[in-house]
Amino acid sequence: MTKIIEFLIKPDPTDERLTEKVEGLDQHGQAVTTSVTVERPLTLFLNSREIVTMMTICDYPEFLAVGYLVNQNMLLPEDEITAIEYEEDIETVVVRTNSETNFEDKLRKKTLTSGCAQGTVFGDLMEKFDDVNLSPDVKLTTSELSVLLKKINTAPSLYLEAGAIHGCVLCVGSMPILYMEDVGRHNAVDKIAGYMFLNNIDGGDKIFYTTGRLTSEMVIKTVQMGIPILVSRSGFTAWGVDLAKQADLTLVGRARGERFVVLAGDHRIEYA
Amino acid sequence: MTKIIEFLIKPDPTDERLTEKVEGLDQHGQAVTTSVTVERPLTLFLNSREIVTMMTICDYPEFLAVGYLVNQNMLLPEDEITAIEYEEDIETVVVRTNSETNFEDKLRKKTLTSGCAQGTVFGDLMEKFDDVNLSPDVKLTTSELSVLLKKINTAPSLYLEAGAIHGCVLCVGSMPILYMEDVGRHNAVDKIAGYMFLNNIDGGDKIFYTTGRLTSEMVIKTVQMGIPILVSRSGFTAWGVDLAKQADLTLVGRARGERFVVLAGDHRIEYA
Repeated sequence: MTKIIEFLIKPDPTDERLTEKVEGLDQHGQAVTTSVTVERPLTLFLNSREIVTMMTICDYPEFLAVGYLVNQNMLLPEDEITAIEYEEDIETVVVRTNSETNFEDKLRKKTLTSGCAQGTVFGDLMEKFDDVNLSPDVKLTTSELSVLLKKINTAPSLYLEAGAIHGCVLCVGSMPILYMEDVGRHNAVDKIAGYMFLNNIDGGDKIFYTTGRLTSEMVIKTVQMGIPILVSRSGFTAWGVDLAKQADLTLVGRARGERFVVLAGDHRIEYA
Repeated sequence: MTKIIEFLIKPDPTDERLTEKVEGLDQHGQAVTTSVTVERPLTLFLNSREIVTMMTICDYPEFLAVGYLVNQNMLLPEDEITAIEYEEDIETVVVRTNSETNFEDKLRKKTLTSGCAQGTVFGDLMEKFDDVNLSPDVKLTTSELSVLLKKINTAPSLYLEAGAIHGCVLCVGSMPILYMEDVGRHNAVDKIAGYMFLNNIDGGDKIFYTTGRLTSEMVIKTVQMGIPILVSRSGFTAWGVDLAKQADLTLVGRARGERFVVLAGDHRIEYA
């Protein structure tokens, strides 16, 4: 079990691989130099089988690879990972397990989920949905939330440096623990899921923050990670709200500054 | 050819199928009623073959279906559509063509593209990329852009009503023509592509506006539609900028109010 400390992982906007300076013109026709985020292809293999090619900032290819497989239910808690091999020159990451996994079953049906979403989910994202019991005892006070949002929003980030990026943060109370960014929100979520899987971090007492919208897929992934509270600065979709109610997930949206709206699981919010 | 008029299609936030009222609590613990966007599954068939299930607001299932197939190169300009059958009760849309299409070839390779992206692209989104010649003669003046942005941002929309939605707009000069919204930006793009395909609208003199980021995929789709100017209120990714330069696409980002940055194809922008 990893020791929980504030910003165990956080964005590194000074990492020269992650942004690029580009020359352009502004609204007055004046030359400007601006930072843009660098996306790279990364092809994921599970054992000898090619799964997918993702576009990512590629700061944590191993966490991304494992988290993708976990969130697609292609890798189960009982599967033992024997190696993760990232080959930068051929833009490839291979996850090896001690036995064959059952993921071929997942290839039957593709669903494009909504929003800034993973896109392809192999079959049944909701497979584990009904089995999860989110703890009713975890609470989040409004003052903790306010402190948490301030810490996240003022932390140096690629978002502040270059924009065009999504962020996700795993938190406890008012403490951000893992802050991941990526060109797709799904990658940021997957990198956190991968880190949690590899370091045996339990989601049961955590809060998940995302810059993205509270869609069905975001709710399903949060529930799959066993996390009882999901917070976003963006808005809701109706199915996201429905699923959150079904799973008794606390769903907090439009959280900016001191303001927010909670549309499901409000018993975990304490006004203090 | 459809007659080009302002807001030929625009969002209808009063359509009761598109939003839902939900009860919740605000930051003071006060009861609030708020609108959230309704997403619905829609399964697309090309002839007898099931292609994908999408989550959509489902305001234009026919345009979405055709645009998806066009943007995936599963439907080519020479293919003749004989019927489009939307069955609301079983959440299905079937596109029928007079002959078999070659799309099976596309199923070989899946790539998850970046950003708020389609997710799955069947093989070679860039297939047509090298063949396109975008007109160098189309110009956009800064004053046209300013007027255009104001018209788009003040038009009644689901975004203003409920948030959690992406918008795309096909424009000529300072005139918005087709304004589509959806839970995923890819759906909004596809609905516009479907409308253009079915109504023989040529992209060559148009401008494409999106609320989403200027990623590789967004650039590729715009080039595929033959549109020479792409504008977003969001930021850029490095690969998006690179591809825009390769294709000589004019790429305008961070366009809010009077401000913007152009990082490729600035010869089409006139400061007037």
